[in-house]
Amino acid sequence: MVQQVMRTHGAGSVSVDDVGNEVTVAGWVQKRRDHGGIAFLDIRDASGLVQVVADPAQHPAVDDLRMEFCVRISGEVTNRPEGTENTELPTGLVEIDAREVEVLSPAKALPFMIDDRTDVDELIRLRHRYLDLRRPRMAANLKARSRATAAIRRTLDQEGFLEVETPTLINSTPEGARDMLVPSRLRSGEFYALPQSPQLFKQLLMISGVERYFQIARCYRDEDFRADRQLEFTQLDLEGAFWDREAVFETIEKVLSSVVEELRGERVETPFVRLTWHEAMNRFGIDKPDMRFGMEIVDLTDYLGDTEFGVFKSAIESAGTVRGINAGQQDWSRARADELTEQAKGLGAKGLVWMVVNDDGTLRSPIAKFLSDNEIESIKKVMDAGPGDVLLVAADRWKTAVEVLGGLRNELGRPDNHDELAFLWVTDFPLFEEAEDGSITFSHHPFTSPVDIDEMRVRPEAAISNAYDAVLNGVELGSGSIRIHDPDVQRQVFEILGIDSETAERRFGWFLEALEYGTPPHGGFAFGIDRLVMVLQNEASIREVIPFPKTQSGVDPLTGAPTWVEAGQLSELGVGLTPEAKARQTADE
Amino acid sequence: MVQQVMRTHGAGSVSVDDVGNEVTVAGWVQKRRDHGGIAFLDIRDASGLVQVVADPAQHPAVDDLRMEFCVRISGEVTNRPEGTENTELPTGLVEIDAREVEVLSPAKALPFMIDDRTDVDELIRLRHRYLDLRRPRMAANLKARSRATAAIRRTLDQEGFLEVETPTLINSTPEGARDMLVPSRLRSGEFYALPQSPQLFKQLLMISGVERYFQIARCYRDEDFRADRQLEFTQLDLEGAFWDREAVFETIEKVLSSVVEELRGERVETPFVRLTWHEAMNRFGIDKPDMRFGMEIVDLTDYLGDTEFGVFKSAIESAGTVRGINAGQQDWSRARADELTEQAKGLGAKGLVWMVVNDDGTLRSPIAKFLSDNEIESIKKVMDAGPGDVLLVAADRWKTAVEVLGGLRNELGRPDNHDELAFLWVTDFPLFEEAEDGSITFSHHPFTSPVDIDEMRVRPEAAISNAYDAVLNGVELGSGSIRIHDPDVQRQVFEILGIDSETAERRFGWFLEALEYGTPPHGGFAFGIDRLVMVLQNEASIREVIPFPKTQSGVDPLTGAPTWVEAGQLSELGVGLTPEAKARQTADE
Repeated sequence: MVQQVMRTHGAGSVSVDDVGNEVTVAGWVQKRRDHGGIAFLDIRDASGLVQVVADPAQHPAVDDLRMEFCVRISGEVTNRPEGTENTELPTGLVEIDAREVEVLSPAKALPFMIDDRTDVDELIRLRHRYLDLRRPRMAANLKARSRATAAIRRTLDQEGFLEVETPTLINSTPEGARDMLVPSRLRSGEFYALPQSPQLFKQLLMISGVERYFQIARCYRDEDFRADRQLEFTQLDLEGAFWDREAVFETIEKVLSSVVEELRGERVETPFVRLTWHEAMNRFGIDKPDMRFGMEIVDLTDYLGDTEFGVFKSAIESAGTVRGINAGQQDWSRARADELTEQAKGLGAKGLVWMVVNDDGTLRSPIAKFLSDNEIESIKKVMDAGPGDVLLVAADRWKTAVEVLGGLRNELGRPDNHDELAFLWVTDFPLFEEAEDGSITFSHHPFTSPVDIDEMRVRPEAAISNAYDAVLNGVELGSGSIRIHDPDVQRQVFEILGIDSETAERRFGWFLEALEYGTPPHGGFAFGIDRLVMVLQNEASIREVIPFPKTQSGVDPLTGAPTWVEAGQLSELGVGLTPEAKARQTADE
Repeated sequence: MVQQVMRTHGAGSVSVDDVGNEVTVAGWVQKRRDHGGIAFLDIRDASGLVQVVADPAQHPAVDDLRMEFCVRISGEVTNRPEGTENTELPTGLVEIDAREVEVLSPAKALPFMIDDRTDVDELIRLRHRYLDLRRPRMAANLKARSRATAAIRRTLDQEGFLEVETPTLINSTPEGARDMLVPSRLRSGEFYALPQSPQLFKQLLMISGVERYFQIARCYRDEDFRADRQLEFTQLDLEGAFWDREAVFETIEKVLSSVVEELRGERVETPFVRLTWHEAMNRFGIDKPDMRFGMEIVDLTDYLGDTEFGVFKSAIESAGTVRGINAGQQDWSRARADELTEQAKGLGAKGLVWMVVNDDGTLRSPIAKFLSDNEIESIKKVMDAGPGDVLLVAADRWKTAVEVLGGLRNELGRPDNHDELAFLWVTDFPLFEEAEDGSITFSHHPFTSPVDIDEMRVRPEAAISNAYDAVLNGVELGSGSIRIHDPDVQRQVFEILGIDSETAERRFGWFLEALEYGTPPHGGFAFGIDRLVMVLQNEASIREVIPFPKTQSGVDPLTGAPTWVEAGQLSELGVGLTPEAKARQTADE
């Protein structure tokens, strides 16, 4: 270690071994208590806390000391008087008897306490992020993130991967979100795009013969901020040549295990559980199931072939399905039923059927009267339902039914912390999905290889891709695929996606050309560092593990970014504001 | 290591231990020779080369194989026939007797040979960078860069540093170059700036109590491309709290030593040599002297007090100086003299005096006749000049004279490779410098602390800053400083720079506010990874160590970035093209 400069000890490292010695610490005043004319100061630095005892009569500076003053204090280490030891603190057996007290920097009155227990509005926390990051939980999150990326790099280094930096001023690539743009000055009027991922560059690296590439890469997506998105985020990006899916899985499992080991000291069981996309949807109603709890979706269709209940009947007759989950013991009321029905409708259901099993085995339900005893018995049996269990049933086309139940399952069953970890691979995604306008679009991205090229052409809606996701506790960590390495297949995929050959040539000609020079089979993966660290640190938002995040409207409350820019600077770039933007600026200034 | 998937061995790892065994390799056809109806193929992958012997009669696929085809080949490892071993190749004692030959991907005819000896136009190399990177030298550069950053991280991890990611969508900061801008969609018409460095965020991290921060950070400067600049570059950015300059130097010396050790297996002598800025200018005429050779600047003023030579006389009379360098044995001619004189004028000199020492001790020089015997003897003595030595003399005000000689010194003395390494600290930079318009501007950046705050106010032109540069072989690797941690000092510096308090408040109010909450004394450093790896890999341009660099006009010849963007996409961002840019676009399309 580089030697300490302004101090002899980290505050948290002062111990009984130092008793009788003169030490110097530097840090912040975490707490101050005055007792019998003597000041007791908790001095905090990155290493921890130590108690300083100072007599204001001898050290006038002590009178000024308020919370979060930055100070340097020298003095003799002494044993704390008997009965005043603090066994919860590593330094709790000693204190420093102040001989010299120096204020390095005063602090104004604080907008909030530097304390994990303080509940502060997030906007205020972000505006004073430099104070927020002094809180133990946030400091631990910063540290955890640093250790996580160090573990990732260590593991991949051992596996023979090269870390390669790809450019961030690039061309637009088709990744599904809007690109963020950067105007060029030397070619004014033209724009670079910031990468949504290094996808095409990592494929170029495979063509370059790198064979095992990784990068912890900053990526950019201009999406409408949903719950927990940022304009910029960080992902581990990884690719290998002469690889199959098993090699990708094995590598990612090693990487994720090393991070869990580093942050939690826990071993992860590998290989991870695997589900095909279809099985995940069928059993859990979502492509990123949380595997920490059961509450699986049960198919009731077969037991309701003769049902008199119109909703079930018409669903079954129109090739739909009736499915349910056993939500177990729930605090049940009419109001709760209405609430969940509203949620089900929000998820696409026309309605929701609920049933509660009475102690005598009968059902309490608005539709109980439409069900035969046989049907009731069958439902109870196949759903493994006992007295008090709440059963929720949806009747609809397959996808809607399972998605509705999957949403309710998460609502009703999901643990509210991440103490337990359940990793999962979801495989065999459909190659294409229907866009909102009915056109066909790629589920993953257009460089993902199809399992069967002929099926891709003949029945694109049924075609399966070599794509896979990694899921942790119901959070999608990331996704990957085996890529297309044959330029002809790549051209066919563009064509199926409705990109005519002229457009393909104009936008991706350079890439199709690159594929022509002996491209090795290759595949890879990318996962979000923010999300992984969020789960492992038991946080509910990625903003808690990003040092300086932006709000949902893309604003940094600390620096005020983004801002207006002088017209002269813009015109040099070949751009100017639209009339609407100019009006906004005038109103703003 | 993750197991091999499509092969059993890396090509470079097949050895005599494998003789008699069946192996599978996958890679590229580096070379093909046909001899007696048999094909000899050099198969290359990331691990090296191995020779394959294949009989086209048995393996029809062999007939098609051309250079850079991607193939998979299985066969038995055999000893090469006596007399055909290649002792220069690690696998040179064996070959693979092909049993199966599979073409994974064919390759078109190559635009250039995959060979270090091929001299190709850089534009063609960049257009097919994926082939260029297959060349051994470029592959080695990629690997070196990865190992360099791994060594940096390992060292800083041992020193207790946290790697923290700071945002890249930020506000403009005053770093001397133009910012690159990113239009915001959610606040259309407003812009983020891409960071020229993480300067203010790393200072915020110090205020946050991180104490030891580093980041390998992508930075952006929209400068007119000089010789060897890129719009985006990567720097090691580092900062410590409760630090002084010595701690920064010790840390950076450890980091740089670890990289040299990693890439060259050499030990670096520490501590590095140090020169103040004034001494560097005085002795070497530049603030980043190449210390691998002498040719120091000598002050001749004292010996020419009575000179009759008008140019010297008037320089001395107007408080200027006469200085020279002994350029040693040079191939000297009238044409060479004219050439260097032109260079000297380009560097600001009014002219250049040259002298060659004759074998008899007299001087051959246009001005020899103006010099007395005494003056000639003094000049020869103080410049340690012997027969055949070329002496170059400039008479001017101090700064011009030393800068001119410093430029000529580099031209005449600099080694043309980096086999030897000479590290250097340059310290005590002036706090301010005169801008081209005569106003005062910061030499470093306005967050650098002055050595003496009173001097800063009274005689700003003489004030020294706590800034320092690291130099390697005449290349400025990077710079750092002890920062201002007192908000009042920061306000005074803004004021001296002519930033009125209202502007300071508007642009940096959030930062001045942050300084008010117990800011620890802190300082740090940043150096360019591109330049460091360039020198250590003995390359002449940073483009050789950047996987996908841009040309001097900011264009990527491979992907064509930057490009025109659809008007609709722009208007969503609140911007449109200027009429000039629109005209360019129309002409272009």
